[in-house]
Amino acid sequence: MKAAKTGEFEIIDRIITEINKVKPGEWNTLISGIGDDAALIKTRSRYQVATTDCLIENVHFEKNFLDWTALGWKALAINLSDIAAMGGTPKYALVSLALPPDTDVENVVKLYRGMLELAKDTGTVIAGGNISRASEIGIHTTIVGEVPARSKVLLRSKAKKGDLIAVTGRLGAAAGGLKTLVHSLHPSRNDAEALIKAFWYPQPRIEVGKVLVKSGIRCGMDISDGLVADLGHILEMSNVGATIEAERIPVHPSVAVLGFDGLELALAGGEDYELLFTGKMEAIEKVAAEACCPVTIIGEITRGKGKLEILDIKGNIMPIENGGWRHF
Amino acid sequence: MKAAKTGEFEIIDRIITEINKVKPGEWNTLISGIGDDAALIKTRSRYQVATTDCLIENVHFEKNFLDWTALGWKALAINLSDIAAMGGTPKYALVSLALPPDTDVENVVKLYRGMLELAKDTGTVIAGGNISRASEIGIHTTIVGEVPARSKVLLRSKAKKGDLIAVTGRLGAAAGGLKTLVHSLHPSRNDAEALIKAFWYPQPRIEVGKVLVKSGIRCGMDISDGLVADLGHILEMSNVGATIEAERIPVHPSVAVLGFDGLELALAGGEDYELLFTGKMEAIEKVAAEACCPVTIIGEITRGKGKLEILDIKGNIMPIENGGWRHF
Repeated sequence: MKAAKTGEFEIIDRIITEINKVKPGEWNTLISGIGDDAALIKTRSRYQVATTDCLIENVHFEKNFLDWTALGWKALAINLSDIAAMGGTPKYALVSLALPPDTDVENVVKLYRGMLELAKDTGTVIAGGNISRASEIGIHTTIVGEVPARSKVLLRSKAKKGDLIAVTGRLGAAAGGLKTLVHSLHPSRNDAEALIKAFWYPQPRIEVGKVLVKSGIRCGMDISDGLVADLGHILEMSNVGATIEAERIPVHPSVAVLGFDGLELALAGGEDYELLFTGKMEAIEKVAAEACCPVTIIGEITRGKGKLEILDIKGNIMPIENGGWRHF
Repeated sequence: MKAAKTGEFEIIDRIITEINKVKPGEWNTLISGIGDDAALIKTRSRYQVATTDCLIENVHFEKNFLDWTALGWKALAINLSDIAAMGGTPKYALVSLALPPDTDVENVVKLYRGMLELAKDTGTVIAGGNISRASEIGIHTTIVGEVPARSKVLLRSKAKKGDLIAVTGRLGAAAGGLKTLVHSLHPSRNDAEALIKAFWYPQPRIEVGKVLVKSGIRCGMDISDGLVADLGHILEMSNVGATIEAERIPVHPSVAVLGFDGLELALAGGEDYELLFTGKMEAIEKVAAEACCPVTIIGEITRGKGKLEILDIKGNIMPIENGGWRHF
């Protein structure tokens, strides 16, 4: 049944049904959810972190490889990643859906199933939302979370000369997955599947974000636009430079198997949603010991605002051709 | 300069400049705003209200009568109205912009000026946001606010048989304004201007919402889809019916001057963003004495879930032809 025939209120009823199926215990903070002018939520946060991000058709995905369940997961994941990148704990989410009138209502249900799976995993309450007609699909999600204290937070402005630079996980996989989808490459091979999964089902590093703060790290962000572009934000906001050793960058192993340039995808591909952070060796070692994922030191913070040097295996400076994802 | 040429980060810089120009004192709750992964906000709320809504090109407005400053005001206003409809106080907003690459950056600045004017008036902090490319304009805004206690809130489910039904302000003006814009009717006449202003610059009834709660009203919502559709939500959620006397409905005087059917626009036009509420005569009299706008009793809550009767001046039941705004 198409949205245009079903109407807004039947779609909302279907969404409420899905929510009621999975509603975990921690959702008791939600006093009044979908159905009123605004959601009513009980909170004890003194310091909140709040973020919004979107996924839009033909910008972030294409209809010919669209997976609605994955889209729901990813729409929430990219925002949870921003909460993780502050060292925060997610509390509740609001979802503003823009949908073409010919959208199948079963697909909206799938979208919510994907979203609710990750919401459950992360203790995030889906508190409310809105649905509007549009000519293209747009999923705009907002998440409110909390941090334990004003100073116990990861900011882009806190990198200091001499800090080491580290990343979680493996890079380049999401960009490889997008290429695999766009060009319909070997979709049955394990490596291709791993990359597609990295593109559609990023794992927001919420627990690692908290470990970072606990370990004394104060500078961090998530990698959404690619390592070069995102590290650039830290350098600008912290008034520092950086040197990266290319061969240390932990490229996802499946990227090379598919024949892609792993370093290029890691540097400029984007959408990995891993954490990029800086700090002293001692703090990073603490993180590595406690984190549930690989933690790799890739370089060092230097003098010189915004100056980024990437060194090859011989210590020569490599040209930076691609500055990362451009939104326009 | 077009967004495609300027790039995301220069647009964000322009937005930050606009924000810094008007930043009032109460924004000291914003510890870290635009520029990091998420906004960091200090809060003391125990009970929060949170809502999201959007304005989309060709759905809520058309490019040929688009006023960017007004669009910014309205994008915030429609969400503030939802906070008002809960009896809440707005605290902070996040803005997710979807913009075509050929959007003039000066228009984005105008959008923020309109938004910031209302933000200042209402003490709302613009805490953060996101910008993405899209093929059509979409402004998705989320607002987090607070209510003083769990029970001091306006819900759609609290209407009781015997309650009187009242509305704030005058109805039908926004729908009349939209018709005036779409058909380019007499744009220089005072009445046309009044209607266009009602369409573009709705005044969220935040102060009145608080007066309602203080006066003991517990059932209320804002009129966004038209009186019939919105009252229908109260009737469904409260398990009651209603009788409305048509001639009591406060139709905006300019609607008739322009030659529109005032009653139809008031009943089904939508976008008035006035408050619709139910309660005892004594509480409504208190509200009328304290509110800064007209308060009009238009009918009564009856038995019979969802049953709405509109009576003409002779007491005859009028047919309800148009159920209000459909989102699909």
